Amino acid sequence: MNNYKTLDAKDREFLVSLLGEERVYTGEAISDDFSHDELGGISRLPDVLVDVLSTDEVSKIMSYANENNIPVVARGSGTGLVGASVPIFGGIMLNMCGMNKILELDEENLTLTLEPGVLLMEISKYVEEHDLFYPPDPGEKSATIAGNINTNAGGMRAVKYGVTRDYIRGLEVVLPTGKVINVGGKVVKNSSGYSVKDLICGSEGTLGIVTKVILKLIPLPKKAISLLIPFPDLDSAISTVPKIIKSKSIPTAIEFMQREVILAAEEFLGKKFPDNSSDAYLLLTFDGNSTEELEKDYEKVANICLVEGALDAFIIDTDERKEAVWSARGAFLEAVKASTTDMDECDVVVPRNRVAEFIKYTDLLQEQFNVRIRSFGHAGDGNLHVYVLKDELSDEAWKIKLAEVFEAMYRKSRDLHGLVSGEHGIGYAKKGYMFDQYEPDYVELMRNIKLAFDPKNILNPGKVCE
Amino acid sequence: MNNYKTLDAKDREFLVSLLGEERVYTGEAISDDFSHDELGGISRLPDVLVDVLSTDEVSKIMSYANENNIPVVARGSGTGLVGASVPIFGGIMLNMCGMNKILELDEENLTLTLEPGVLLMEISKYVEEHDLFYPPDPGEKSATIAGNINTNAGGMRAVKYGVTRDYIRGLEVVLPTGKVINVGGKVVKNSSGYSVKDLICGSEGTLGIVTKVILKLIPLPKKAISLLIPFPDLDSAISTVPKIIKSKSIPTAIEFMQREVILAAEEFLGKKFPDNSSDAYLLLTFDGNSTEELEKDYEKVANICLVEGALDAFIIDTDERKEAVWSARGAFLEAVKASTTDMDECDVVVPRNRVAEFIKYTDLLQEQFNVRIRSFGHAGDGNLHVYVLKDELSDEAWKIKLAEVFEAMYRKSRDLHGLVSGEHGIGYAKKGYMFDQYEPDYVELMRNIKLAFDPKNILNPGKVCE
Repeated sequence: MNNYKTLDAKDREFLVSLLGEERVYTGEAISDDFSHDELGGISRLPDVLVDVLSTDEVSKIMSYANENNIPVVARGSGTGLVGASVPIFGGIMLNMCGMNKILELDEENLTLTLEPGVLLMEISKYVEEHDLFYPPDPGEKSATIAGNINTNAGGMRAVKYGVTRDYIRGLEVVLPTGKVINVGGKVVKNSSGYSVKDLICGSEGTLGIVTKVILKLIPLPKKAISLLIPFPDLDSAISTVPKIIKSKSIPTAIEFMQREVILAAEEFLGKKFPDNSSDAYLLLTFDGNSTEELEKDYEKVANICLVEGALDAFIIDTDERKEAVWSARGAFLEAVKASTTDMDECDVVVPRNRVAEFIKYTDLLQEQFNVRIRSFGHAGDGNLHVYVLKDELSDEAWKIKLAEVFEAMYRKSRDLHGLVSGEHGIGYAKKGYMFDQYEPDYVELMRNIKLAFDPKNILNPGKVCE
Repeated sequence: MNNYKTLDAKDREFLVSLLGEERVYTGEAISDDFSHDELGGISRLPDVLVDVLSTDEVSKIMSYANENNIPVVARGSGTGLVGASVPIFGGIMLNMCGMNKILELDEENLTLTLEPGVLLMEISKYVEEHDLFYPPDPGEKSATIAGNINTNAGGMRAVKYGVTRDYIRGLEVVLPTGKVINVGGKVVKNSSGYSVKDLICGSEGTLGIVTKVILKLIPLPKKAISLLIPFPDLDSAISTVPKIIKSKSIPTAIEFMQREVILAAEEFLGKKFPDNSSDAYLLLTFDGNSTEELEKDYEKVANICLVEGALDAFIIDTDERKEAVWSARGAFLEAVKASTTDMDECDVVVPRNRVAEFIKYTDLLQEQFNVRIRSFGHAGDGNLHVYVLKDELSDEAWKIKLAEVFEAMYRKSRDLHGLVSGEHGIGYAKKGYMFDQYEPDYVELMRNIKLAFDPKNILNPGKVCE
């Protein structure tokens, strides 16, 4: 059904007339980087890559592509893990990274207005200098804000602060037809028609191209402290989390980590973690404005952990220890990746009182399939990052084994009332697992929604629900 | 284009066979209450009213209606203000109020699972008994939770805690075709396909019928205190709010109120407000777990107010004072309504540093059009409830004057980068003002979305974007 036009010299001419020669790349001038993301297991180069610098340019290109039936993919930093930004039908790729200006900090409305290509690390640095806080904290700090919006990334602080969606006040969006709309704004409340803003959020670049963002900020908490808590095994560590939640303490983050992953990170970084003698750890963070309250909170939680079998409770309060712990946590994905030949990730989310059961099941799978499985992630919000490693397997054996292990894991997640993706999205790689989970009527509804935005199916086709 | 089938004896028979005689009402058996909401300025009775008690019943009726091209409206408590629940094309009305059971409190996942007809006042009572908190706090406590979801109601605590959307983890939804889908769940994060959940939220009963709800809860803050702060005039009161926000204190609520509205509430309730000698007041609430922090916060804010010209700062900490203040605040809408012959409401939301400007403009309109205008609302989140009162005007004169005043107010809101509705929705009554604001492409997109859900346009037709 996708009879897209093959790009020709006339199309290239149009792009050059709009952007100039130096922002239009074809053939060998396109770096191989643009053919893939971090992990999606799929690659293809676009027929033409362009650097865009304004909403108007994006709009004109989309109008042209829509008229001429040319597929378009907008790409940020390419840090995705499910192939959402790979141009599987070729066509035009828009490199959004040049639209990277911070436009306005409004301290009376606590909003930050940005272009889509601003990086996560730049946002936190900028707002914290003004004593303000953008809470979403995905591990990959070189992702763009629009990329985060498109996956509705969650990150480590979701336990207390929620996910990216909760901090998007307004968007400027170029629709697949080239029309530009503004949804939301600086306002705190909005019940003015269907929430197109919330539909764009999490749509993985298939419904529109985000060209401007208004973020909600909050005051920066004055104090933060972390606890690193060793446990004799992962099961007792993770089983403690629902008890912490039930105790009505809300830490900012509750991460779990296993010794093997810590060792891999130590090797990867060439730096020591504060402790690596135990099999499993919980890493908890607390933030707030009063030392008294913070202390009360973390003492209560430390006690719960000790009652549940924790071996100790290390307070991470010096800059040096904080750096050691969080740089290791930030390097987990890269460290696991460096320890093997290839890998793929399962990003399921389950109710947080079922995390232990899921992890125990992956241990079983590891034995049953004789394959290395490594996991870390957000015990506090039920979102796991489980990596299946190829190691010495042949390409063929790996393909078969990975499919079997994934099939089993996603089935288990469904049994536990979990969902396919907590924050990395569906993209290209996880479509089948989503189709296995949702009622066919739900998938059909998503396809109808896609067509409501994109009747010619030219914006990032072949992703999410297609 | 809406060639709906006129209901006949066969349709009634189908409903009776499904529900029994005692749950199917026609003709005089339908109370007039079901023809209107609280303020929408429009009324029509359904051709048949049915009490539904299960998802299966709702699904079967929707399938039948979809096959037979019969319009359907689902109705909760009917506390809306824009006519969203009025069956303007007749057809079948589903009274959802019988589906009113609290199904499960899950303290390990901090979720509450409910049927759609549970009332707001029942939710807060139930969860607070378990030391938990459902933060959204719209003034109308006899609204149903599904009604709140359908308008994405915000309420008084949005400044600190956000709106209804932020507390919806999962929904069971009957689509206009009768198919049942589950969106979200007990999970904290979700990036598994388009967020149909967030689209249903705020769709005013036009995209699907909510038949089950999973709410997010948080621990109940241990302490709360209110400050009532008199100002010499409304302008100085409201102009102080952006300074409070900028000071990085985040009160739970910042409400503004004028003397006239307080006097009306005193008369309506037959009870005294703690103070009525000043022209304007800010009412602020603070909550948290540490007295020390709370005190620091409200002292800082009280000082800002005094510097900005406040006449005093009353601490509202006894149960008696709290009751006097909050019962008055809760009665404002009813009290204003009782003080006149008819009225209509403008529920605009503007960036919070533009509230003062908007209110000053309504004062001008009051003089210019020689009409009483009363307002109160959420200074902290920029959402105003502005009432234009009919008083002794003839029906005809009122109609003309109201249209002129509204036209001016919505124009002003657009100038200030505000939106048509902060929390009461568009429904039937505010469609024109939304069409005036949004790009035609945006409205067309909403219509496409509506058709993606409801190809025959039978669910609550004629609302929001049609």
